[in-house]
This record gives sequence, C-alpha cells and structure tokens, in this order.
Amino acid sequence: MEIAQILIDGKWRTATAEATFHATNPATGETLATPFPVSEWSDCDLALEAAAHAAIELRKLAPEQLAAFLEAYAANIEAASAAIVEAAAEETGLPASPRLKDVELPRTTNQLRQAAAAAREESWKRATLDLERNIRSCFAPIGPVIVFGPNNFPLAFNGISGGDFAAAIAAGNPVIAKAHPLHPNTTRLLAEEARKAAVETGLPSGAAQMIYHINNANGLKLVSDARVGAVGFTGSRGAGLALKKAAEEAGKPVYLEMSSINPVIFLPGALVEDGEKLARELADSCLAGAGQFCTSPNVILLWDNANTESLLASVAKTFSERAPQPLLSLSGQSQIQAGVAALTSAGAELVAGGHNVDGPGYRYANTLLRATAKQFLARPHELQREVFGNVTMAITVEGLEELVSTLELFEGNLTGAIYSAKTGADDELYAQIEPLLRQKVGRLLNDKMPTGVAVSPAMHHGGPFPATSHPGFTSVGIPAALTRFATLQCYDGVREDRLPAVLRNKIQNADTWRSIDGAWVKG
Amino acid sequence: MEIAQILIDGKWRTATAEATFHATNPATGETLATPFPVSEWSDCDLALEAAAHAAIELRKLAPEQLAAFLEAYAANIEAASAAIVEAAAEETGLPASPRLKDVELPRTTNQLRQAAAAAREESWKRATLDLERNIRSCFAPIGPVIVFGPNNFPLAFNGISGGDFAAAIAAGNPVIAKAHPLHPNTTRLLAEEARKAAVETGLPSGAAQMIYHINNANGLKLVSDARVGAVGFTGSRGAGLALKKAAEEAGKPVYLEMSSINPVIFLPGALVEDGEKLARELADSCLAGAGQFCTSPNVILLWDNANTESLLASVAKTFSERAPQPLLSLSGQSQIQAGVAALTSAGAELVAGGHNVDGPGYRYANTLLRATAKQFLARPHELQREVFGNVTMAITVEGLEELVSTLELFEGNLTGAIYSAKTGADDELYAQIEPLLRQKVGRLLNDKMPTGVAVSPAMHHGGPFPATSHPGFTSVGIPAALTRFATLQCYDGVREDRLPAVLRNKIQNADTWRSIDGAWVKG
Repeated sequence: MEIAQILIDGKWRTATAEATFHATNPATGETLATPFPVSEWSDCDLALEAAAHAAIELRKLAPEQLAAFLEAYAANIEAASAAIVEAAAEETGLPASPRLKDVELPRTTNQLRQAAAAAREESWKRATLDLERNIRSCFAPIGPVIVFGPNNFPLAFNGISGGDFAAAIAAGNPVIAKAHPLHPNTTRLLAEEARKAAVETGLPSGAAQMIYHINNANGLKLVSDARVGAVGFTGSRGAGLALKKAAEEAGKPVYLEMSSINPVIFLPGALVEDGEKLARELADSCLAGAGQFCTSPNVILLWDNANTESLLASVAKTFSERAPQPLLSLSGQSQIQAGVAALTSAGAELVAGGHNVDGPGYRYANTLLRATAKQFLARPHELQREVFGNVTMAITVEGLEELVSTLELFEGNLTGAIYSAKTGADDELYAQIEPLLRQKVGRLLNDKMPTGVAVSPAMHHGGPFPATSHPGFTSVGIPAALTRFATLQCYDGVREDRLPAVLRNKIQNADTWRSIDGAWVKG
Repeated sequence: MEIAQILIDGKWRTATAEATFHATNPATGETLATPFPVSEWSDCDLALEAAAHAAIELRKLAPEQLAAFLEAYAANIEAASAAIVEAAAEETGLPASPRLKDVELPRTTNQLRQAAAAAREESWKRATLDLERNIRSCFAPIGPVIVFGPNNFPLAFNGISGGDFAAAIAAGNPVIAKAHPLHPNTTRLLAEEARKAAVETGLPSGAAQMIYHINNANGLKLVSDARVGAVGFTGSRGAGLALKKAAEEAGKPVYLEMSSINPVIFLPGALVEDGEKLARELADSCLAGAGQFCTSPNVILLWDNANTESLLASVAKTFSERAPQPLLSLSGQSQIQAGVAALTSAGAELVAGGHNVDGPGYRYANTLLRATAKQFLARPHELQREVFGNVTMAITVEGLEELVSTLELFEGNLTGAIYSAKTGADDELYAQIEPLLRQKVGRLLNDKMPTGVAVSPAMHHGGPFPATSHPGFTSVGIPAALTRFATLQCYDGVREDRLPAVLRNKIQNADTWRSIDGAWVKG
C-alpha cells in the first residue's frame, strides 16, 4: 500500500520518510493498513519555509478572508463528516455516535465558526488608542504556529482542526500541524478539507500544513526554529516539558496543556443531601471517554464517615458493573497499569478494578482506589501522580485540618470542584478551603463535575504549572485563546494613513470593540 | 560604619551577609562610605516566607487599600524627594536636576498613582461574564513577585518603586525587590518610604520587601522557588537569560527586558527636507543619559549619499563637542570599550570618539561609528552587538534591496523608527520596509526618536525576543503591565455570593469595565 502523503505548501506530497508507522484500531487491536511516514527534517524545513512565506501573505489579508476560510472549513468538515467520523472511530475506539458525530464534530465546527466570528469582529486585537499622544497599540499575528494535538480528541483538539488551529488562524497565523500518530488518517481527512477551504477562499498555500510524525530530536528542532512564532501543545507532561525547554531556550512562546488530576471535594453536607445522585454524577464523569479527558476527576476528597463509605460503595459498584471502554492505545493501557501499580505501592488501596481486561482491544478495568489523607501527606508526590484513564482515587480526611494540609501539597491543576450542601451547612468549610483551592486551579466549579469544557468567552481551560506552562492563558474560550498567538504592536506618532485599519480614528468595522482614551467603544 | 539593613517582613533588620559591598559615585570615582550586605540564602528565605504570607493577606484586601498604599507611597516619595534625589545623583552620576528631580521622580510617583487608579478601577482584571452558562473569569494576583531593577533608572525602574513594583502591587501581589547594587542607598531610602506607606495604609508587613544583593546562584534559586508567583527583570541579556532559564524550568512566568539597539531609519527624502534638524534630534537622543537608555538609538540606517554625509558630519561634530556624561559604573565603561573594539574589529569605522575619557569618574568619548550594509550583511551578529552607552553606529545602504536584507537580519528590538519626507516622497519606500521592521520591534515610530517612553495605556515597552522574553506583554503602560503579574481564574457554576465582587451580577464599583456576554459594559 502507498505511503500516505503529507500536506506541504498547499499540495499533497510524498514525505521524505525515515520510517513508516501504522495506526491501530484500539477497540480491536487490529493494525490498520495505511502506512504513514515519519518525516525527516527536510519535510519540516519545507513546511517552515512555506509557513514563513504564508505569514507575510496572511498579514495582508482582510480579517474577512480569515473568517471565510474558517467557515468554509467548518462547512467542508460537515460535508465530509461521515468519512471523518468513521476514520476517527476506527483509530480511537471512541463511539461514532454520540461522541464523535454528535458531540465532538459539532464542537469542532462550532469552534471554527466562533473563531471566524472573532477574526471578523477584531475585538480580540484589543486596539488601544491614546489619541492625545497619538500612541496606539493592538495585537497582531505572531508568525507560524506549530500545533501538537493530543491523542484523546481526534477532532476538537486535532492540530489541523482543533482549538489551537482555529485560534492561530483567526489571529492571522499559518499553522504547521503535527498529527497525533494515533489518528493519522483522521488528520489526513481533516487536512484535505482545510486544503480545499484554503483554495476556495484564497488563503496562501502555506497557511495550513500537516505532517504526521517526526522523531523527538526533530520535534525539539522544529519548535525552536527561527521561523517559528509560537507553539501550541496538548499532551503528556514528559513530552510537554521537553518541548517547553527547547522552545523557551529559543525565545519562543509555548503554550502547553500537560497534566491535571482535577480534585473534586465533597463537603460532608453535600453527601447528606444527595449522596446517591453524586455517586452517579461522579461515576459518569470518571468513566466518560474511559477517563481519557484532561479534566477527568482523578482524585476526590471526602470526609471519613459513613456517607462517604456509601458513596464509595456505590461508585465501586458502578465501576465494576459498567463495561470498561476501549483505551486509545496499548501504551495508554501500559501507562495506566504502571500508574495504578505506583499508587498502590505508595499505599493506596484498590477498591475496584486494578487490572487489564481481556480484549478485544486495549481495556483496563474501571478502577477506584482509596487512601487516607495521612497516607497522602506522607507521600504527596507519588499519590498525586496522574493516571490518564478510567482510574480515580478517593482521599478521606478526618477533618478540615487534614483537608487543608492535603490541598496545600497539590500541584497546579486545570480544575477543582467543591460540592457543598444546598442548605448552607457547608458554607463555613467552603470559605476556609476555597482560597487555597482557588490558587491551585484554573477553573473552580461548584456542585458540578469538571468534565465538559464549554467554548465560552469566559472559559478558562488552563491553570498553574504544571497543568499548563502559563497561568494567564486559556486554550479554550474565544476570543481569549487567540492572544496566545499574537504579538503586541505599538504605533507611536505614526501617520494615520499608515496605521492598520483597526487603529485608525474612524474604524470601518462597526462591530469592533476598542479601548479609546480609557473607555471601551464599539465601532 | 554600620552595615545597612535589609527590609524584611516590614522591619529593617541586619542581614545575614556573606560579604559587603560599597556603591561608588561614578561622576567622581569616589567609593561611598556605607557598607551594604550581600545576603545569604537565609535572607531570601525569610523574605519568601513573609511574602507567601502577605500574598494570602493581600488577596483579602479591597482594591481601595492597594490604591491607598500606592498613593501614600507616592506622597511619601515626594516628601522625601530631596534626600532621594541626592542619593540617586551621588550613586548614578545622573544630574539631580532636571533629570532626577524634575523628570524621573515625577515619572515614578505618576506611575505609582496610575497604578493606584488601575487597582481602584479594577478594569485590568478583564472580568468576563457568560451569564447564561454562569461561567465567569477574571485576572487575579499571581503570588509573590521578585523584581530586579536595572542600573539606569534608579527611581522609575527601581525594584522597590518602579513600574514593575507598581504593577505587581496594583495587581495584589507582594514584591521582593532586589536592589541594583549600583544604587543601594537610593533603594534603601525608597524602601523606607514604602515601609512607612504600608504601615500607614495597613498593608501586610511582607507586601514590600527589599534586599540589596545576592550571589548569582542565590538569584537563580530565588526566581525558581516554589513560593514565587512571577519575576520581573530589567537588565543585561546575560543575566536575563540565566534568570529566564531558571525561572522557566520551575514553571514561573518571567518577564525580562534585556537588550535592544533600536534601529532608526532615515529615508532619503527626510534628509532632503530637514537634515540639520534631524542631526540635532539624533545627537540629543543618542547622548541623553550618556546613551544608557534601553531605547537609545544604537544603530541608524541611511542611504549612501551626500545628505547622509552631511548628517553624519554634523552628528560627529556634536558628539565631539559635547562633553561626555559620566557613565553609571567602571564596568559600564569597560563594557563600552569592549563593545566598540568588537564593532571596529568586525569592520566598523570610527567617525568620532572611540576612547575612554579621563576622569573625574567613568566617561567614554561620545562615539559614532559607521559601516556599510555590505559589511553588516557579512557579519550581522557582530555588528548588531548592543553597546550600552553613548555609542551609535550608522549603516549606509546603497538602495532598498540592501536595506531589506539588513532588516531581515536584525534580532527583535524594543523600538524601530522611520523618518520619511513630509511630502510623501518616501511613501513607496516606507510601504516596502514597514512590514519587515514592524515584525522586528515592539514599538514603531514615525519621525521621532525612540527615547522617551510615555506611560500611556497604549504604550508597548516590549518586543520580540531577545529584546524581551515574551512579545505579548509590556512593562510600561497601565493597566496592561498589571496582567504580567496575574493568573486567570474561572468560576464555573459558582454560587453568586461566593464570587469575587468583580464577577457578581451587580457590581459595586461604577468605574469597572467588564465584558458581559460579549459587550464591554461599565459599572
């Protein structure tokens, strides 16, 4: 079978490959037929050269044209949705419906359209005018963006179609997408729709490019290349930290979403009111997508009492009864196995699961562990290890003091949730722990599970290190996500006819919010 | 004489010193009497502990109290201005008047008052409300901020009184200021006014702390300590890159302003119109503060023609006639000497100056060099070396093509200026070079010199690496500068009475701009 081609400078071309690889259907374990190339550096170099050229061309385009591309791309994805969903289901083992077809694909096209609207509106540029001094500034494209997509969202976080892609393009930058090697064919199909949309809307040929795989050394070389503007990455902590170091040494802004165990705290009154309902919510959240979500609740904190025992028993029952969903890969399964072994050897007790499950494909028993706060406090590093999958650990505390000590030792996380009594019975406890949890997480939730990340302008999908690389930026939420891929540009005493349109006294675009002499003004 | 004390947790205390040092009067070369301590790690540790505690306390304060502190501090500085200016003049050799008393000190108090106004207004938090989904987010304090001030602005960029200090405090963070060892006594006097203001306005004792000096290893340890929220630094590229690496490995946001040669381009028509005036403007800008400004025009680009020769002859005459101002230090003088030697050995020709000048104090002859674009293109790295001081190099180009090639090889800079004919004669050239220069600089100027950085909401004092560490942030300009020291915090489904005041449906503060369901609304 022919080796799949890469998308460089608007054309599908044969890669200069140092090796090939195959995807697997993780629900069956079957190796898929198409060979995909591991590109040599020369492919990266071609992509960078085309991207550098495209960056110049993109800066000349009206925002409307970026918006038109993103909308055409969304429409193309919808038109090709059957094939895309089929490929994604085959490569990820995720259910074609509802997950891929009815949830993730619409989310993907919605993100592209929201990004289009943001590009068109131009408010994301935060145009700031000091009319008296004639000093003006706005955000502008940063240059070619390298996007590494994760394994777990083949569409909505794909390097060629996901949130980082949409944000980078909407901000006026070309993207070089590095496919996740677990779903290369899905990425290929998406890239073809991007290519068609670029042709349809007159985007430069190097605006959207895609390679499947490169070795680690070339990955580090890629993110630190002089032609790069910025880097977006969603994935493991190990890979993320290596890319971070390389990019930062070269002075490149790099936005990483790495790891998170997303603590959920059940204050005692919440369990009194509605323990059974919470047990169901928790189990559903933990097992969604076989727990392979960045916001999956990997650790829960509860008072050591009878209500907690009931809740845990109920969750354990659900975990045991519900068939484990396929994991994304064999290495994902091995990682869970190693993680659970590490947790138990650090003292956590197995309540349910804790073993591989026979095929087809790669599955691991839905797993619940438990430990006491005392155990956690003795081995905080080992017991907050992220296990990416259907594994959750309960930590029981004997009172507020232990809870506070435990929270103080948590690393940065994407989310933290607190369930409390509706009656207000937990309010005093809430007030005492909220300030502590607040500083550890990007998104604080009340009475709801952290899975499910709405694409809202107020969303913050980010958090303190090591959850991400910078606590001031979000990867979900438009228009805020665009500013990651922007540079601030000031015009001091520049003649008005030389200013970008968004900074002139009279603006054509009636929808643009600008800050003029300290007041936000529209149009 | 007794060793000066450090300001830790609201009290002046004797440092645990591994050594002492003295400041020098660089205008005379005289060593000043007071010994200052080089702190051991234990002093840093005490400061970090107090700062971590203060960070918790500061989050509980109303914005009004932060504002009151900043305003009281500004008033205290004014009340003590005679002594502060005297100390600064003695330690820096800068003229007490007008520079320190009439320019820098008012700028410093103005910055503190602008920061107070921003803290009070709260618009910097960019409160974003999605009412339908009940998702809300805003910027919040990031935690203890370490500020390293530079040698060249003893007041306006001082770690304990400058722009980074004002921004970090206004955003609700404690500051540990590391004094610049060239002006420890000035820093001591400022710290005392900060201490008094903190007492007067009830700020936590660890909100504003100051140490004079630490060794390099402790500097790296300090910026990567777990208790640190972020780091602000203004200084040399070497020191900056070392701190950057240490902070980033620990996952700490670090904002550095490092080096810049600030290219100024004279298009041919500009010289035809007003060569003599431009020669005066240029010389004044180059020699202001003995060229020891981060935005000093270190390189100018001109057409190889008779008008350029006239301009250079005029500038050379001014450089030779005007008495060189004292430099900030002996090492500053040595650095200039080494820098000029490096430029000439890379082929640049000396037009004026190029040698040390006899005392009193440390002086270097006002120095003009020249090179051709061809020379620059052959040795671009050596010929764009920053020489921090009264040294400027002219590069002559034989046409547009050479200018473009030269600009393409420039590193990131804080500023870039283009002078062009008022008649429009240079407009075509401008259009061809602007896109290239625009991507290399944070602030683009027309028909004016880059020295002079207005404290305007539209100012961008920053730029692409290696001028700074992130092209999206500014260190001057309020409120934008505050967001460097902030973390984004999202509230998802949080009960309204638990939200911070700035995110509640009804806001008390009538002056706060918030983005509510996509529209900016005041109050």
